[in-house]
Amino acid sequence: MGAPDDIWPAPGTPLAEVMTPMPVIDEGRMAANIARAQAHMDGLGRAFRPHIKTHKLPEVARAQLAAGAVGLNCQKVTEAEVFADAGFDDILITYNVLGPVRLARLAALNARVARLAVTADGEAVVAGLAARFAADRPLTVLVECDTGGGRCGVQTPEAAAGLAARIAAAPGLRFGGLMTYPAPGGAAAVEAFVTAAQALMAAAGLGCPVVTVGGTPDFFAAGAVPSATEHRAGTYVYNDRSMIRAGHATEADCAMHLLATVVSRPTPDRAVIDAGSKALTSDLLGFADHGLVVGYPGARITALSEEHGVVDLSAVEGARPEVGEMVRVIPNHTCVITNLYERMVFHDGARVTRVLPVAARGTVW
Amino acid sequence: MGAPDDIWPAPGTPLAEVMTPMPVIDEGRMAANIARAQAHMDGLGRAFRPHIKTHKLPEVARAQLAAGAVGLNCQKVTEAEVFADAGFDDILITYNVLGPVRLARLAALNARVARLAVTADGEAVVAGLAARFAADRPLTVLVECDTGGGRCGVQTPEAAAGLAARIAAAPGLRFGGLMTYPAPGGAAAVEAFVTAAQALMAAAGLGCPVVTVGGTPDFFAAGAVPSATEHRAGTYVYNDRSMIRAGHATEADCAMHLLATVVSRPTPDRAVIDAGSKALTSDLLGFADHGLVVGYPGARITALSEEHGVVDLSAVEGARPEVGEMVRVIPNHTCVITNLYERMVFHDGARVTRVLPVAARGTVW
Repeated sequence: MGAPDDIWPAPGTPLAEVMTPMPVIDEGRMAANIARAQAHMDGLGRAFRPHIKTHKLPEVARAQLAAGAVGLNCQKVTEAEVFADAGFDDILITYNVLGPVRLARLAALNARVARLAVTADGEAVVAGLAARFAADRPLTVLVECDTGGGRCGVQTPEAAAGLAARIAAAPGLRFGGLMTYPAPGGAAAVEAFVTAAQALMAAAGLGCPVVTVGGTPDFFAAGAVPSATEHRAGTYVYNDRSMIRAGHATEADCAMHLLATVVSRPTPDRAVIDAGSKALTSDLLGFADHGLVVGYPGARITALSEEHGVVDLSAVEGARPEVGEMVRVIPNHTCVITNLYERMVFHDGARVTRVLPVAARGTVW
Repeated sequence: MGAPDDIWPAPGTPLAEVMTPMPVIDEGRMAANIARAQAHMDGLGRAFRPHIKTHKLPEVARAQLAAGAVGLNCQKVTEAEVFADAGFDDILITYNVLGPVRLARLAALNARVARLAVTADGEAVVAGLAARFAADRPLTVLVECDTGGGRCGVQTPEAAAGLAARIAAAPGLRFGGLMTYPAPGGAAAVEAFVTAAQALMAAAGLGCPVVTVGGTPDFFAAGAVPSATEHRAGTYVYNDRSMIRAGHATEADCAMHLLATVVSRPTPDRAVIDAGSKALTSDLLGFADHGLVVGYPGARITALSEEHGVVDLSAVEGARPEVGEMVRVIPNHTCVITNLYERMVFHDGARVTRVLPVAARGTVW
């Protein structure tokens, strides 16, 4: 019982025969995205740590490391477990790890991953870590700083320096540096926060080995944070509509397309495709509609129900897609689509090359 | 390799010890939702056909049939395959089934499911079905009507009657009736469309055995469409915030809660929980924020990133949730959450009762 195994295409299947809705990854575009990003970070002399959230695939992570990345960024303990099982030995979990179950599993990971680190942004989190880890196998902890992103993180350089001292003083913890996930365009705020915190830490005799900054949108502006030693990014590997808007990518850099079929043309101005919120997700990321329909620039995916996408064709000039036609959608946000599918289909532009189990899909905490 | 199996709680685990983020289903509330809905349809003398999209679980579908439902509603051929494998023998797939691969699998299903039916809304779809099915094992086909929902469906009663005649004339097809997924509050439009189409069909000597109407929001107003013979609904089984807004349910009828943990309190007015768009989805369904935080009526989940939910506490009176505290979220939309998880955790209010594989999750087309 369960979803049938034979719903996935075999390698060699022509792309035109892949069943829809299905996300597919262009091998050449992905390889070019990996190479271009690594070359940029190499040019800056900055370490690059890809975030696995976008692909959740050890095979892709291996390609990222082969290109020169220093290690991986995960968001959950269970994700890190999957990548540790696959042999990766340098993993940063950018998350507050809380509670006895997660801490026990984090300790087990720390015993087998050569270079493991987590982040923390407050006393409650550090206290939990300090009580769990001991000097014989210490854990590296970075302080997360809120430099304008408005999510987690200490709010001031003073708080960062104070928490760093608290970590450094715990026998089972090592202070690993500063981490932030900035607001887009937030380079100046990051630099000001980090340099102020570093000055306070230096005055207290505390070194700051790593400053790790994140995000794909500002990837090619990473040089605007000279204090950073490392950059983390995930989306760049596939790219998506939000990365086109950010100026990070062009349509031709988008490696993930969602293949969909036109299942109805109820009116001259309306098409319905078989990709709804269970195929594309509802992530708008500030857009008013649900993705770009490749080759039909006037088409707008105006509404999603679970298994239907409603496409407004009123602004499409020339031919309009017919019932049964396969269309390609560049999604607003690629990372959340990865999370929906058991397997990911890769292709060379004409045929399916690989169908990989999304190894870290389904991890819960 | 892959997501570890031991991340799921065992039956008997206290609910307070379930790891987060995790959706959990209250057995008693679900049973009450099933009983209340069936009693309403029984009172109307109307057949009830639950939609499996909300739970994707044969075990829950069995409870729905045990209460008196006539059969199941699926949206995909592969979903129907999962439920046929589980022994269900009356399945309506409310979708245009297109292309040789899907049609071949539909034919295989039709050979083993006692009562299988699909819908169609245009000549291209009916032509494909008519070419695939033969008189020795005919397929039942209903005409989908757009009565204001603005998705699929023929646009006029005349088109409905014409397509019904086309189906009835095909040797391998049987005309099964009319289907619509109405706009909320669209009862009058449905009744006008259906009765007009029925008059045209009757004049042509064509009977209309079934009129199947759908949706949870107008479930308790189903009597306003007297021409309907059958109602389809999915969300009622769990209920969610959108069903509270629709007047269909109260907070106490919501069987699915998303358990989350407060992982950060960066400022007095901000909490961050470990439920982001990969746990809750981004379905807004017209809301401005991402779910109700049970017990904290002023709290607003204002932003989701993939593994974080940012909660604005500024309007919370009294105590505010602390780091490490478990909170419960009533999601905007329950059906899309089902689609994210490999297993679904059930409980009796205090302890985990069952952990079921989401059998029809991961079906693609």
